[in-house]
Amino acid sequence: MAILNASKRHQPNTGLKMTDLFAQANQANNISFGMGLPDETVFPSAALQKAFTQAIAQEGADIFQYHSTQGPASLRQKIAAMTKTYFGLTASAEQVILTQGGQQAIDMVGRAFLDKNDHIVVEGPTYMGALEAFDSYEPTYHEVPVNDDGMDIAHLKQILRQFPDIKFVYTVPDFQNPTGVTMSLAKRKALLALAEEYDFYIIEDSPYRYLRYTGDMVPSIASLDTSGKVILISSFSKILSPALRTGWLIANKQLIALFLDIKSALDVQPSQISLLAIDQFLAENNIDEHIRAVNAVYKDKCATMVHYLETYLPAHVQFTKPEGGFFLWLSLPEAQDAGKLLLGPVLQEANVVYVPSEIQYASRQIKNQLRLNFTYPSHEDIKDGIMRLAQVLKSI
Amino acid sequence: MAILNASKRHQPNTGLKMTDLFAQANQANNISFGMGLPDETVFPSAALQKAFTQAIAQEGADIFQYHSTQGPASLRQKIAAMTKTYFGLTASAEQVILTQGGQQAIDMVGRAFLDKNDHIVVEGPTYMGALEAFDSYEPTYHEVPVNDDGMDIAHLKQILRQFPDIKFVYTVPDFQNPTGVTMSLAKRKALLALAEEYDFYIIEDSPYRYLRYTGDMVPSIASLDTSGKVILISSFSKILSPALRTGWLIANKQLIALFLDIKSALDVQPSQISLLAIDQFLAENNIDEHIRAVNAVYKDKCATMVHYLETYLPAHVQFTKPEGGFFLWLSLPEAQDAGKLLLGPVLQEANVVYVPSEIQYASRQIKNQLRLNFTYPSHEDIKDGIMRLAQVLKSI
Repeated sequence: MAILNASKRHQPNTGLKMTDLFAQANQANNISFGMGLPDETVFPSAALQKAFTQAIAQEGADIFQYHSTQGPASLRQKIAAMTKTYFGLTASAEQVILTQGGQQAIDMVGRAFLDKNDHIVVEGPTYMGALEAFDSYEPTYHEVPVNDDGMDIAHLKQILRQFPDIKFVYTVPDFQNPTGVTMSLAKRKALLALAEEYDFYIIEDSPYRYLRYTGDMVPSIASLDTSGKVILISSFSKILSPALRTGWLIANKQLIALFLDIKSALDVQPSQISLLAIDQFLAENNIDEHIRAVNAVYKDKCATMVHYLETYLPAHVQFTKPEGGFFLWLSLPEAQDAGKLLLGPVLQEANVVYVPSEIQYASRQIKNQLRLNFTYPSHEDIKDGIMRLAQVLKSI
Repeated sequence: MAILNASKRHQPNTGLKMTDLFAQANQANNISFGMGLPDETVFPSAALQKAFTQAIAQEGADIFQYHSTQGPASLRQKIAAMTKTYFGLTASAEQVILTQGGQQAIDMVGRAFLDKNDHIVVEGPTYMGALEAFDSYEPTYHEVPVNDDGMDIAHLKQILRQFPDIKFVYTVPDFQNPTGVTMSLAKRKALLALAEEYDFYIIEDSPYRYLRYTGDMVPSIASLDTSGKVILISSFSKILSPALRTGWLIANKQLIALFLDIKSALDVQPSQISLLAIDQFLAENNIDEHIRAVNAVYKDKCATMVHYLETYLPAHVQFTKPEGGFFLWLSLPEAQDAGKLLLGPVLQEANVVYVPSEIQYASRQIKNQLRLNFTYPSHEDIKDGIMRLAQVLKSI
């Protein structure tokens, strides 16, 4: 039934819906490679509990009051320092805005720049949450294929020649969600040169960068930017805890006032309680050591999944071997529909959940691929789940 | 300087800006009647600290994981029970969505229903944060004057005859932000009858309803609604703590799936840590007793401000006498501009901050009125500030 007075951006969508998948992922008898969840055993729970208690004790009643839209300066300074370490970017605390997870930062970028039908570029495939956010602003999408070394720059150049008024290019350059691939240095430089030439922003969304298991760090796009074209988004969700709902956006100073107006209209300000608890955690604990410990756990899980995929997958299925992050990517023969397979034999016989490619492409056209998460399931579930999935995939 | 690629909704605004005012409000030598802040002494700080510690201890690592977009059922059940007590509305936990303060719920309503140039009705004056949120969706505003017993229904009927395709009417019916007035029962019924006739939603935004100092409770609009036309928004910000950033939206079941999709695109989900801490607080403490204690403090502050206004204000200035809430409203002679006065003698001689009417009207046309907050300043600051403000207002 149509909803009374609904806006055009929210007309009923008859396609595959994420919420349906997540309901499946939560069924106890299914092994979930679907959602991008951290492993709960890596949360520094005791230290975080102590940080909440200490932050409230230190601040007293004032911590429960309204505070600033941008977030406390002490935490923004620590994030600037982390950004120097992990992104090689020198940014001031004034350039950092705390957001409600990285997702809110993505939405704020849409709101800042997009009028209806404006042109933007996304990777194909890309982070499905970014598509959800941008959909609200009804843009015209252009999709650039992702190769093993990141987005296809030649294809991007073709798009730009035809549509030079691109507002921004959205990319997840490090251990991309969903493919797991990392953009090469040469492509990062080429993308920046195009941003200069065509005057568009690069939205560098990089929540996974801290989580490298093999190979060498590639310079961040933001660290190579000399003209304020890069807006960097990151988050504590994948390295500390997603329930803190704390991400951030780093941009050139001219943009900060605009983003603060947007944040204020969205939800006034972030939670001082959560932010000062994080600040306290970072003051009392070594975040670099914590990240190394997380990496050790995820490196093994990634290796386990790759091992069982190599052992059991039939030859007609290809997959990526990521050097970090949360995900890897399977490509089935072109005639296959991973969504239909999921709702058919994969859920019914293999009891495995993954995310089909259809909802990870802005075009919704490519259906024969799928995303697997390796950080949440146990080693045993990875083994069992991949063996059961491979069994189904052998018969297609 | 124009911002590269900014969307039309975010072109530079040359008028009075809230952020400038808030900077003034934070100057130590000024007495602030500006922002709508609670009194920090009423925060149940020790009980909230204990609730955070207990919630984390009980849940263990799982509290730091991703959870649901809607928020935990146990807290939604408690909110449904509070809604029965304070709003006389029987709603199920399934009809409650937790939001990032009431502000996010307002933004979600805009996103759900508004295409560019769609028609909506707001009160004149209205909550300036709602205007900030709705501005993002570029609606056509219609403004209904607020009388001592709420919005002018005859004026609303005129608007509806001319523009029958109104998407929604946004109202703060209880101790309105900014005027402090409460809508009468007769007007609530008339508004509902019009919603039926013209098929629009009523957005009943009521964060102050719990805070009644004198007089009798008027039935909520939602409790009188028999056809799912009312969307109710409320929050813990004014009764517990704004730093919890926790509000909610209650709507008919058909709308819940739409609002969950919107919430997911905005910021994925709320913070399980904050929500389970609130749930724990509500399980261990009597919220009704707490609200009675808050009311006792604010009732006295309201009386103090009214007393000094009656004693010192010149006869050419009128003001409202609210029965609850956070604010009262002053009307200066029509030729006056409260914004210019503020930036001139009020800040420079009286060292007092208030919010001028200009930014609280969608039309931006009425400039001779202003909002005073009485919950944040001490009794002494109320006395000193009102005497100093009255001195300036005598000379206009």
